[in-house]
Amino acid sequence: MKRIAVITSGGDAPGMNACIRAIVNTAYQEGIEVVGFRHGYRGIVDNLFQPLHPDDMRLVSQRGGTFLKSARYPEFREVETAQKAATQLNNHDISALVVIGGDGSFRGAAHLANYWQGQIIGIPGTIDNDLAGTDITIGFATAVDTAMEAIDRVRETAEAMARVFIIEVMGRQAGFIGLHAAISSAAEAMILPEMDPQPKLPELADNIKQARVAFPDSSYIVILSENLWPGGVHALAESLTKATGVTCHACPLGHIQRGGRPNAQDRILAMQLGQAAVSAILEGSSDVMIGLENEHVVEVPLHLTFDRDKPLAPRLVNLQLGLQGVNFTSKKVRKNA
Amino acid sequence: MKRIAVITSGGDAPGMNACIRAIVNTAYQEGIEVVGFRHGYRGIVDNLFQPLHPDDMRLVSQRGGTFLKSARYPEFREVETAQKAATQLNNHDISALVVIGGDGSFRGAAHLANYWQGQIIGIPGTIDNDLAGTDITIGFATAVDTAMEAIDRVRETAEAMARVFIIEVMGRQAGFIGLHAAISSAAEAMILPEMDPQPKLPELADNIKQARVAFPDSSYIVILSENLWPGGVHALAESLTKATGVTCHACPLGHIQRGGRPNAQDRILAMQLGQAAVSAILEGSSDVMIGLENEHVVEVPLHLTFDRDKPLAPRLVNLQLGLQGVNFTSKKVRKNA
Amino acid sequence: MKRIAVITSGGDAPGMNACIRAIVNTAYQEGIEVVGFRHGYRGIVDNLFQPLHPDDMRLVSQRGGTFLKSARYPEFREVETAQKAATQLNNHDISALVVIGGDGSFRGAAHLANYWQGQIIGIPGTIDNDLAGTDITIGFATAVDTAMEAIDRVRETAEAMARVFIIEVMGRQAGFIGLHAAISSAAEAMILPEMDPQPKLPELADNIKQARVAFPDSSYIVILSENLWPGGVHALAESLTKATGVTCHACPLGHIQRGGRPNAQDRILAMQLGQAAVSAILEGSSDVMIGLENEHVVEVPLHLTFDRDKPLAPRLVNLQLGLQGVNFTSKKVRKNA
Amino acid sequence: MKRIAVITSGGDAPGMNACIRAIVNTAYQEGIEVVGFRHGYRGIVDNLFQPLHPDDMRLVSQRGGTFLKSARYPEFREVETAQKAATQLNNHDISALVVIGGDGSFRGAAHLANYWQGQIIGIPGTIDNDLAGTDITIGFATAVDTAMEAIDRVRETAEAMARVFIIEVMGRQAGFIGLHAAISSAAEAMILPEMDPQPKLPELADNIKQARVAFPDSSYIVILSENLWPGGVHALAESLTKATGVTCHACPLGHIQRGGRPNAQDRILAMQLGQAAVSAILEGSSDVMIGLENEHVVEVPLHLTFDRDKPLAPRLVNLQLGLQGVNFTSKKVRKNA
Repeated sequence: MKRIAVITSGGDAPGMNACIRAIVNTAYQEGIEVVGFRHGYRGIVDNLFQPLHPDDMRLVSQRGGTFLKSARYPEFREVETAQKAATQLNNHDISALVVIGGDGSFRGAAHLANYWQGQIIGIPGTIDNDLAGTDITIGFATAVDTAMEAIDRVRETAEAMARVFIIEVMGRQAGFIGLHAAISSAAEAMILPEMDPQPKLPELADNIKQARVAFPDSSYIVILSENLWPGGVHALAESLTKATGVTCHACPLGHIQRGGRPNAQDRILAMQLGQAAVSAILEGSSDVMIGLENEHVVEVPLHLTFDRDKPLAPRLVNLQLGLQGVNFTSKKVRKNA
Repeated sequence: MKRIAVITSGGDAPGMNACIRAIVNTAYQEGIEVVGFRHGYRGIVDNLFQPLHPDDMRLVSQRGGTFLKSARYPEFREVETAQKAATQLNNHDISALVVIGGDGSFRGAAHLANYWQGQIIGIPGTIDNDLAGTDITIGFATAVDTAMEAIDRVRETAEAMARVFIIEVMGRQAGFIGLHAAISSAAEAMILPEMDPQPKLPELADNIKQARVAFPDSSYIVILSENLWPGGVHALAESLTKATGVTCHACPLGHIQRGGRPNAQDRILAMQLGQAAVSAILEGSSDVMIGLENEHVVEVPLHLTFDRDKPLAPRLVNLQLGLQGVNFTSKKVRKNA
Repeated sequence: MKRIAVITSGGDAPGMNACIRAIVNTAYQEGIEVVGFRHGYRGIVDNLFQPLHPDDMRLVSQRGGTFLKSARYPEFREVETAQKAATQLNNHDISALVVIGGDGSFRGAAHLANYWQGQIIGIPGTIDNDLAGTDITIGFATAVDTAMEAIDRVRETAEAMARVFIIEVMGRQAGFIGLHAAISSAAEAMILPEMDPQPKLPELADNIKQARVAFPDSSYIVILSENLWPGGVHALAESLTKATGVTCHACPLGHIQRGGRPNAQDRILAMQLGQAAVSAILEGSSDVMIGLENEHVVEVPLHLTFDRDKPLAPRLVNLQLGLQGVNFTSKKVRKNA
Repeated sequence: MKRIAVITSGGDAPGMNACIRAIVNTAYQEGIEVVGFRHGYRGIVDNLFQPLHPDDMRLVSQRGGTFLKSARYPEFREVETAQKAATQLNNHDISALVVIGGDGSFRGAAHLANYWQGQIIGIPGTIDNDLAGTDITIGFATAVDTAMEAIDRVRETAEAMARVFIIEVMGRQAGFIGLHAAISSAAEAMILPEMDPQPKLPELADNIKQARVAFPDSSYIVILSENLWPGGVHALAESLTKATGVTCHACPLGHIQRGGRPNAQDRILAMQLGQAAVSAILEGSSDVMIGLENEHVVEVPLHLTFDRDKPLAPRLVNLQLGLQGVNFTSKKVRKNA
């Protein structure tokens, strides 16, 4: 008789609760008990134990955040801390641990595997979508919807006042949220870490100036990934204001992008991965992440999820570059047409 | 120099506007003019002509419905009507027609191809997702979110009053919306056209009675696809009330499922397919639908989109059956645990 | 040292949870304990006791429904049942009971007062807004927003397909939701129980026919209050279809109107009334409802809340009649202008 | 035969479009023509003329922003500019001007009145609610809902990570949005310009430290009005972090608070005021704002709307102070209870 432990670790992501529900319900169907530790790895070390049962899972899927709570816990990189966690897991007779989190959490899992004999399964849960080995991570789709809806709101003000906005979105070191937000909000420009060459200030400024001539009565929205522009969105807005003579307003979307009820895509993804994690445990897998590639559930060695870069889809980058580019060529076409 | 015409046809779907934007912007970048006809095939026949230009596409992507308007138009099955449409298209010097719609619209396109020499490209736009040759259709993801959010609301009342609800969702003859809504709303049961064998009344009634014993204080939600139960959701609710002795409330979600702002997934899908449609025209394709399979854009002969059935993903059906089944076995497990 | 009991009774309404929070937090500040009974009056009789403490109130305000659960309980009209409730309340040393609910719940409160000596305070909690003595009830504002958003969705399909929709909204015997939904969704017509004379079929049909001539390409939406038209919204849609020759689609909004997160107005209203209820108890009031009139908290004898009819605001009725009327006169004005 | 002009001026606010619809529809019913100038006062001076007709008003009410576009226009304070505007209005045979905006816009209206003979009517349209003479302004209710929903999202992350957030909301120099957002989101603390004495850093820090002891596993949210704390929300967060030893995260909500579809309350308010503005013109009023006090439409001399301060409702301030205060006394109560 197995006993599985679950933690959510790192930044919370919408859909984590639905994932826990799927793990718990699937496990109990197989006669396996599930327990949780609150606040991720810290909770294992500090023994923040919490029993998990299907009866309590009935209404959790629709909620944002994680009812198991999460934490960032850099101390877990130390050998001694990982050993303490191993001891705690053994004390609780845990034979398998499911870690729902991002790349930091998976590094922690790989670290723990050096000191603990149980099975370790990762499930990709991060709004940033920056894990290799899976097309998509839990929370990403909802975060994009949230960013897009926020940008839709800003667009209305921008249109009413004919303003330029530089909107900063999350993504840590990856442009996934930025790219999807730019396409879905029909942004006029985007600046993402993966773009090579990076858009330069003069080029952006020229673009804005051209747009003001072509559409003097309209809005112009630039999507900027966080951690990219020196000084951040306020510095960029200031520089563009100087370079264009047009006031460019900075708008960091901030922490709202992380919260909110998961959309259907995230709930369904989360439940698929949760169910598959239990199957993987039953089949004896360990040190793998359960991912989704081309609509199929796959198992990927944990270290391959964080050692490799995950590129943006070139066709989506080109899609946005193409659609935003037309703004400044269309006038000519009209004349010829 | 080409001239492309676009129509939206059949039931409207969120994302159609974003698709039109992508077609128009991409075409103008290639030096191609785009025009629209309002109200689908009827608009071609009645010459409801509307020029389309990138300048007017700046803010359409975020809106639900279709600004080009749509229509159901059974008269188009007649030879004479299709011939009239061919003549009109020729009068306007149209060399390619893009039809955004569902299977009825694609049958219309195949019919038109008998009488018109231009290129015809279909783009799957229907909330029902019942087109073979593409993993997903424009509007489906938003419709699922809308249904799910509505069910989340009903869940709150159902929990407060400890009630049973039978919720009818759209889907014409397909269970895609039903299945995705059932999973994402953590429904206790579902009845979809593709289920074989179909859930029977006594089985459903037993299930409800067991749940009332296990969770007397809680809600119970059944998702029912439309056009499936004889007499519809009200008849089923009445029969279940009689069979269980528990009042079962009927709740048809109705037309709200069709409207609303497209979510990010639908906007991005729509723009991809719209851009790809223009590429397909430039490459000389005709009588094909542009679809998305395993995250790749594909071309599928039109007749293969409506002549073949599109099955539900078995892993998703099993996911929901597994997760909903645990409700009635969990008590036992707890005792053993 | 007092001990207060709280119940939520009748149909659940968004904001009930925020109201409970305000009662609990305010009471504990005054050194008063609060307990709840689940499922309203039935819970008192069946002793579904639940302690309530500020620590558990931190996150409840933002949720729809009622975590204390509610019930309709016609048995409470019997003398014996009310006596049982009185005994239970005495057994628990309750000195005051707060009832959050609608007119049926307040009739129950007045009935209970015959058999119980404690203080009884009503708080208006019903989406229907049909209680005299208060300008607004908890849940009404959110229900109107929910209905309006649903109608906004239907409007998009209606515009795309140039369709007529008859949309049925809640309200029991009162037109508040209908009136506010009609104004806020810019409906073309409304049928409310308070209208005198009631709109007749030929008049409605003429109106629709005129609109189809003036705006052949557009939508037309009629708001119908429930429990008003013989045979309901489907019968009306059918009759209008026959009378106009235009297909009129029936769209009952149903139970989605009751659920959902409370909007800010409902949360703030609920907390004001909850706080005032505790003050009223401390001041020795009983058999009164705490209401809001002209932005001031008032106490109203319970029987005056359900013995009197609450009229619609004539200025709002006239506002909608004026705004919807212009649709058919505007063409003429344009010519003269 | 009269001819009315309408402008929207200053920061855009949700509901402005519904207000314009009501003005246009009501006027045409009375046989009066309505025209607009885009971008507020600047549009009058620059002759950005736009005809307005009921046919075009059918679908505008549900949109955020203002389709008439707005602007800030400090140049209007100059005599010459106001004279130009007067000349333009006369050139267009305008006999009355309706200005939808905030206090800056009404100062502009009072200024214009010195140089123009027509009637001038103000309608309060600003999310900040900082106009005396009306209980509420168009856009305020929606802005509060938007802020509240954003804070609900942040709350989820804050709960998951047990974090302290300092959330900055709009309001220019007034605490209305801050107060309503704090109540409706059940914030743990608030800092508003009207509070006297202002909360001091040591007091806030103590409060946070106490809360961390009482609820170590939970979130803590402070609502801060913009333009209040020296250095803004980031400076406050930094100071609190130092003073408490707990990381306090800054979260400015920013421009999202201005956009979005108006809620029902704002649409209904906007239409009432728009209709009343036309009545006021017909009755010969001028240099007044149309406001709503105690649910009645009132006319207030323009200068009284910006010369007087509008206080926060003391009962709402006390409501929030009471509800948030209990967090730190409740433990004691429980022991005694």
